[in-house]
Amino acid sequence: MVVYLDHAATTALRPEARDAWLSAHETLGNASSVHGAGQAARRLLEDARDAVASALGCEPIEVVFTSGGTEAINLAVKGLWLAADADADADADAGADASATGPIVLPDGEHHATIDAVAWLASRWGAAVRPVGLDSVGRIDPALFAGALPGAALATALVANNEVGTRNDAPALARAARDAGVPLHLDAVAALGTVALDFAAWRDGGATPDGLVAMSVSGHKVGAPVGTGALVVSRHAHLTPLAHGGGQQRGLRAGTQDVAGAAAFAAALDIAEAERAHEAVRVERLRGRLIEGIRSLVPSAVILGDLRDRLPGNVHVLFPGTIGETLLFLFDTVGIAVSTGSACQAGVTEPSHVVLALGRDADDARAVLRLTLGRTSTDADVDAFLAALPEVHRRAVAARAGRAART
Amino acid sequence: MVVYLDHAATTALRPEARDAWLSAHETLGNASSVHGAGQAARRLLEDARDAVASALGCEPIEVVFTSGGTEAINLAVKGLWLAADADADADADAGADASATGPIVLPDGEHHATIDAVAWLASRWGAAVRPVGLDSVGRIDPALFAGALPGAALATALVANNEVGTRNDAPALARAARDAGVPLHLDAVAALGTVALDFAAWRDGGATPDGLVAMSVSGHKVGAPVGTGALVVSRHAHLTPLAHGGGQQRGLRAGTQDVAGAAAFAAALDIAEAERAHEAVRVERLRGRLIEGIRSLVPSAVILGDLRDRLPGNVHVLFPGTIGETLLFLFDTVGIAVSTGSACQAGVTEPSHVVLALGRDADDARAVLRLTLGRTSTDADVDAFLAALPEVHRRAVAARAGRAART
Repeated sequence: MVVYLDHAATTALRPEARDAWLSAHETLGNASSVHGAGQAARRLLEDARDAVASALGCEPIEVVFTSGGTEAINLAVKGLWLAADADADADADAGADASATGPIVLPDGEHHATIDAVAWLASRWGAAVRPVGLDSVGRIDPALFAGALPGAALATALVANNEVGTRNDAPALARAARDAGVPLHLDAVAALGTVALDFAAWRDGGATPDGLVAMSVSGHKVGAPVGTGALVVSRHAHLTPLAHGGGQQRGLRAGTQDVAGAAAFAAALDIAEAERAHEAVRVERLRGRLIEGIRSLVPSAVILGDLRDRLPGNVHVLFPGTIGETLLFLFDTVGIAVSTGSACQAGVTEPSHVVLALGRDADDARAVLRLTLGRTSTDADVDAFLAALPEVHRRAVAARAGRAART
Repeated sequence: MVVYLDHAATTALRPEARDAWLSAHETLGNASSVHGAGQAARRLLEDARDAVASALGCEPIEVVFTSGGTEAINLAVKGLWLAADADADADADAGADASATGPIVLPDGEHHATIDAVAWLASRWGAAVRPVGLDSVGRIDPALFAGALPGAALATALVANNEVGTRNDAPALARAARDAGVPLHLDAVAALGTVALDFAAWRDGGATPDGLVAMSVSGHKVGAPVGTGALVVSRHAHLTPLAHGGGQQRGLRAGTQDVAGAAAFAAALDIAEAERAHEAVRVERLRGRLIEGIRSLVPSAVILGDLRDRLPGNVHVLFPGTIGETLLFLFDTVGIAVSTGSACQAGVTEPSHVVLALGRDADDARAVLRLTLGRTSTDADVDAFLAALPEVHRRAVAARAGRAART
C-alpha cells in the first residue's frame, strides 16, 4: 500500500463522481443532437453546468467545459491575447490611432501552462511580457501587480501557488485589473476545492471586458476524472477559441460535449464544496503534524511559502544539502509518494522556478520536496512519512555530499 | 425505448470500455509523476498507446491522445500550417529566397472542425485556401486532388464523409501528397471502427515531413467515452501545438494525461477492430433493408453518396418536397432518433454544405436525412423506422407544401 503524499498531482476518483459518470452513460445521445435522445443528454449537461456554476460563483452560461486545466489556461491566455490583437488590427484597418497590442502581465512562479502559453505568444506573435516579482513567501503583492497593469492587453495570476501553496489576494488582484481596465485571468486549478472561489463577487459587476473575465479549474484535483475541467468566461470577455468547429459552448470550445465527464465533475465539486470547511480543519491538523515532525527530526529544514495563508494540504520543504530528486527516489523505495514540485526533463533535475522566484538560489531550488495531503490522507500517512524521514534524509545528505566531493 | 438511428452522432459506451475505465482508476497516480504510483499509471497509459497504435497501423510514439476528434483536427490543421508559417518566417529571417507560406488544400464537404479551423487560419493569419470539388457521390477525385497540391503548405481530406458516407481512396490521396511533397492530414473520425486504417502503409515510409503525416480519430464513435481521441503524428511531421505546458506527449499536447480515458479508448478500439469484418456484414444487411424499404415506400426518395463504397452503417436520403428538420421532428415524436446531418443554428435550418458539394441545390440540401446504424442496431430498429416512414413522409410533404403555399 502506497503512502500517497502527492494529492496536488492528482487525487483519487470520488465514488460519487464515478457513479455520476456511469449514470450519465445510461442516456445515449449527443448533446448537440436535436432529437429527444440528444436533448436528454443536453439536460444532464446543463444540470452539470448549473452545479459547477454554483460552486464557482458564476452564471451557468459562463462555464465553458474543457479537457482540463491546461486547456483552460491556454484558452484564457491565448484567447484573450489573440482577441485583443485582432481588435488592434481592426482598429488599425479602420484608420484609428491604434497602438500595438499591449503586453501580458505575468507574475513569476505561475504554472508552466501559463508560462509556456505566454512564451508562445511572445515568440510567435511578438507579444510583450511584463513580469511581476513574488515576495519571499511566493505571494503577488497587489500594489506591485497594479503597477504593472496600465496599458496591458491582459494579466494572469494564480489564486494559490501550486508548488509552495501560498494563497494570493484574488479579490485585490481583480480590483486592480478592473481599475486599470485590463482583462484578468485567474488560474484557480490548485485552489479549487480548498479555497472558496466566487467569480461574480471578484469580478464585481459591470458590462465591460475588463477586470476578472476568466478563471480556470481542473476536475481531477477534486476527485473528478482526469480530462475534465472548465474555464469560466465572463459574457463580456473577448476571447478567441483554441478549437474551432461545431459552435458548441458559445463558439468558445468546439467539439462533442463530454456529458458524463461534466456530470462527474459536478458531482465531485458538489461534495468537495460541501466538505470544504470541515476538510480544511482535518487536513490542516495533519499538515501541522507533518511540519512539526519535520522540524523536530531535521532542524535544518525550512518550510517555504506562507505559514498561515496557504493551501490546507500543502507542505513545501527545503532540505538544505540535499537534492529533492534523491529524496523523492528514496521515499519511493519505501513506498511513499512525494513530489519535488518541479519539472524533470530528460533525467536532468531542473531547479524549481517558483523557489527561485522566492529569492532562493539554484541549490535551494533543487533541494525541495512538496508534500500534499488530500481527502484520503490519514494520520498513518503522516506517521509513515515521519518514520522514514531520518534515514532518507541521512542518505540524501550523504549522496549530495558524495557527489559534491567527486566534482 | 428510443429507436436510435444516429450512431454517427455518438454511440453507446461499450461495457469493455467502461470496465477498462473503472479498472484504470484503481491505480492512483499522475502519469507524469516520477514515483512508483505515477509510473504505474504511466504503464497503463503506454499499454493503451500501444493498443491504439496497433489498431491504427502506426508506432506508439506517433499516438498523441487528445480530448476528441475536434481537438485532433484543430491540432493537425492549425499545427501544420503554423509550423509551415514559422519555417517560412525563419527562412525569410535567414535571408533565404523565401516565398509566403503556401495555401491549404481543402476539399469541399469536409467536417466543420476542419472548415472552421481553416477559416480561422485564413482570416487571422492570411492563409490562402485552395478548394477541391467533390464528384456527384461526394468523393474526392485523386487526380483533381493531386492537381491542387503543388506549392501547398498542407492538405487535408476525409477518409470517409461523415454525412453521406462515401469513402475516399485514402492511399491514393496520400501518394499524391507524397509525390507533391506536401504534408497531408486525414480526418478518419467517421471512418474509425468500420474502415481499416493503416497509417504506416498509407504514409509509405521516408524520413521527410510530407505525404501522410497526421490522422485524427475520435473515441466516442467506436464506443469509448466522449472526450477521448487521438491525433496520429508522424515523427517526421512539423507541428505547432494548440496547448502549451508540461511537455507531455512529445510537447505536442500539454496537460495531465487521461490514463483512464486512454485505457477505455484502447479497449473499445480493440473490440471494434476485432468485430469489424463481421459487423460490417451484419450492418450492411440492415442498411440494405433500410434502403430497399425506403425506395419501396417513397419511390421519389434518392439515396445520396456512393451506393457501394460507403460506410457500412450510413444511409443518406434525399426526400424531395420535404424539409429534413420536419422529418427529424416527426420521427422524434414517435421515438425514432435520426439526423439531418447538417448544422442547425438558432432555429434556422441550414442547407447541408456536403449535399451542396454534390451539385444539388439548396432545396435538396435541406431535404435530407442521415440514418446511421451501429453496434446496437437491430432488425427491429429498421422495422420501426419503415413502419413510421409513410405517415411521417406524408405529413412532412404536406407541411412543406403548406409552407410553400403560404409564402
